[in-house]
Amino acid sequence: MEKLQNGYLFPEIGMRQLMHVEKYPGAKIISLGIGDTTEPIPNIIASAMSQYSHALSTREGYQGYGAEQGNQELRKAIAETMYRDMGINDTEVFISDGAQCDISRIQLLLGSNLTVAVQDPTFPAYVDSSIIIGQTGEYARNTGKYGGIEYMRCGPENSFFPDLSSVPRTDVIFFCSPNNPTGHAASREQLGELVATATRNGSVIVFDAAYSAYVSDGSPKSIYEIPGAKEVVAIEISSFSKLAGFTGIRLGWTVVPHELSYSNGFPVHKDFDRIICTCFNGASRIAQIGGLACLSQQGQKATQQVIGVYKENARTLARTFTSMGLEVYGGTNSPYVWVHFPGRRSWDVFSEILEKTHIITVPGCGFGPSGEGFIRVNGFNSKECIQEACHRLRNLLG
Amino acid sequence: MEKLQNGYLFPEIGMRQLMHVEKYPGAKIISLGIGDTTEPIPNIIASAMSQYSHALSTREGYQGYGAEQGNQELRKAIAETMYRDMGINDTEVFISDGAQCDISRIQLLLGSNLTVAVQDPTFPAYVDSSIIIGQTGEYARNTGKYGGIEYMRCGPENSFFPDLSSVPRTDVIFFCSPNNPTGHAASREQLGELVATATRNGSVIVFDAAYSAYVSDGSPKSIYEIPGAKEVVAIEISSFSKLAGFTGIRLGWTVVPHELSYSNGFPVHKDFDRIICTCFNGASRIAQIGGLACLSQQGQKATQQVIGVYKENARTLARTFTSMGLEVYGGTNSPYVWVHFPGRRSWDVFSEILEKTHIITVPGCGFGPSGEGFIRVNGFNSKECIQEACHRLRNLLG
Repeated sequence: MEKLQNGYLFPEIGMRQLMHVEKYPGAKIISLGIGDTTEPIPNIIASAMSQYSHALSTREGYQGYGAEQGNQELRKAIAETMYRDMGINDTEVFISDGAQCDISRIQLLLGSNLTVAVQDPTFPAYVDSSIIIGQTGEYARNTGKYGGIEYMRCGPENSFFPDLSSVPRTDVIFFCSPNNPTGHAASREQLGELVATATRNGSVIVFDAAYSAYVSDGSPKSIYEIPGAKEVVAIEISSFSKLAGFTGIRLGWTVVPHELSYSNGFPVHKDFDRIICTCFNGASRIAQIGGLACLSQQGQKATQQVIGVYKENARTLARTFTSMGLEVYGGTNSPYVWVHFPGRRSWDVFSEILEKTHIITVPGCGFGPSGEGFIRVNGFNSKECIQEACHRLRNLLG
Repeated sequence: MEKLQNGYLFPEIGMRQLMHVEKYPGAKIISLGIGDTTEPIPNIIASAMSQYSHALSTREGYQGYGAEQGNQELRKAIAETMYRDMGINDTEVFISDGAQCDISRIQLLLGSNLTVAVQDPTFPAYVDSSIIIGQTGEYARNTGKYGGIEYMRCGPENSFFPDLSSVPRTDVIFFCSPNNPTGHAASREQLGELVATATRNGSVIVFDAAYSAYVSDGSPKSIYEIPGAKEVVAIEISSFSKLAGFTGIRLGWTVVPHELSYSNGFPVHKDFDRIICTCFNGASRIAQIGGLACLSQQGQKATQQVIGVYKENARTLARTFTSMGLEVYGGTNSPYVWVHFPGRRSWDVFSEILEKTHIITVPGCGFGPSGEGFIRVNGFNSKECIQEACHRLRNLLG
């Protein structure tokens, strides 16, 4: 634990926001910081949870413990909706209380004696949970990196996909696509290369697909679209948070294929099942009922509409920064927009924007050393707020 | 992971239940096995969750991510209701998705390089999570024990409280009171001895108070009732599961006092906060609204009524086994009744009762080697089911 540097990124931003509010009590702050959903949950989904909650007060409707692995019907609906034609079975889907929580449970599964590779930049929870479980060496202040972790640089110069031939073999590769924070969705070809490399090296890919619902250009939404991924190398994590506004409701899932085994032939699925039964006790039944409603035909249509709002917002933000002459990435297959401020430090840009426009962003360096010089903004907001934000940004930088 | 013997106790019982149902398709099974609540949730609590869920579909009612540590109001309500006059501050209360999940997060906090003591018998999750995190040595088939863990024998011969003078010092002591499975609530004097020993040895007590709402004889409901516990040695875990029928809703809490520090003086609270922010993302907001309703005056009254039903059931079960000439423990400060079958093996008794009465119990050996020869039953059922169960048991063994 002592190795962890500073606070976790988002609480740190929260603290700076609080300080800003104290300094400017009247300011109307707009948060483009933490990727937090803002739009109401479609009625069909909220109603399902509301009715279920109410029924818990009746003898017919009350239910105690659910299966640790999740509601059978929901597991089946996820397998059929999200993994149609990919050969994923309902028993391979484990329902969770969110992707971040499952990342830690996967770390428990993997243990401390292994090597890890992550995209650089990427969602900080992979590295932070690696540190907590004890996989890493010391922090090197000059590079901003931890020992024992391979940082796979993903920047504009390599189309945000690492040169895998130059990355040393690791036991595990965390890979997030569409990536948080860059917004880049890896292409079919790129993911094919990733799967081939992992297969050759005997590495496990932990694929984070939390933003797959935002893919719109035909890029794969699941690692299992790549032939060989299911049979050999990949665990996939996903979530209802950004798919259906469930950030506060807490619901996600992880796919662990039956075929995946340790080098001694023991099935990983069996160990993950044991961890779920020992270290977790299932997601809230109310949230799971909501998840089922999301996957109904009407539910899917309704959530797609909300996602459409966020994506339109992201495009608006991207256009605004582009019009200011900045290099802008993401925003097409992702709610995230990744903006380059060459030669400047991320926290300085963060502070300047906050000071002059009362807008919260995320300093890119919080996602890894290669994020220095970038900031992340996101489309999770009402259309009106985004327009107001763009107006303020143009006044500042235009 | 490979060290884990057999399946986790409760899934194993579930499997045997399935096999029994296949063998006797018509049988009306009564489960006195897993401690799973059966009575509807009081209307005031279910309605609060129902209304909140519905409001999520409105712009005014929608909320995204909550604080990782939990709803501020709920933390305050727990501090004030559960720890009145014990000096516990709301910032010391972390809301969780259940006690079992927090046990694992506490293990993450503690890490793999330490020694652990547990009551024998006790809830299996302490030992199982110790194994997963890597604190233990090998399993010794002849003793039924894992290396690196001190098993503190708790039986009728020592009034279910260990002889602490004969227990070697460990870094951590897991202590569950009222105990699952024995039902024994440690007295003020016994807990005073525990706190004094831990203070002397520099051990941390992880106190599991999940059944504190069932205490009715004046025994402490919290370790913080013992002078010195807060200042020096104790983390406390608790849960709404058995307090308010939230087994499927998933809500609990853990208290980490600000004063608690590692031997180098670093505050444990700060590390636990970091784990909650990295490995967890808060309990479902809907569940937290339910928790708040539980702690309202009306909510407390209503949940006490439900607990009254379960306690009356436990007393009925205890009387039934006593009338058959068996030694019976628990059932007064606990929903659990612990029945001794001297000279017999727990799984044999489990199988005989299941075969002849279609009643599911829990074999005591699943809780530790000293549980051999016992079975656990519980009062979590409707009054009618318990009466039917007692009727069948008297016919079998009377």
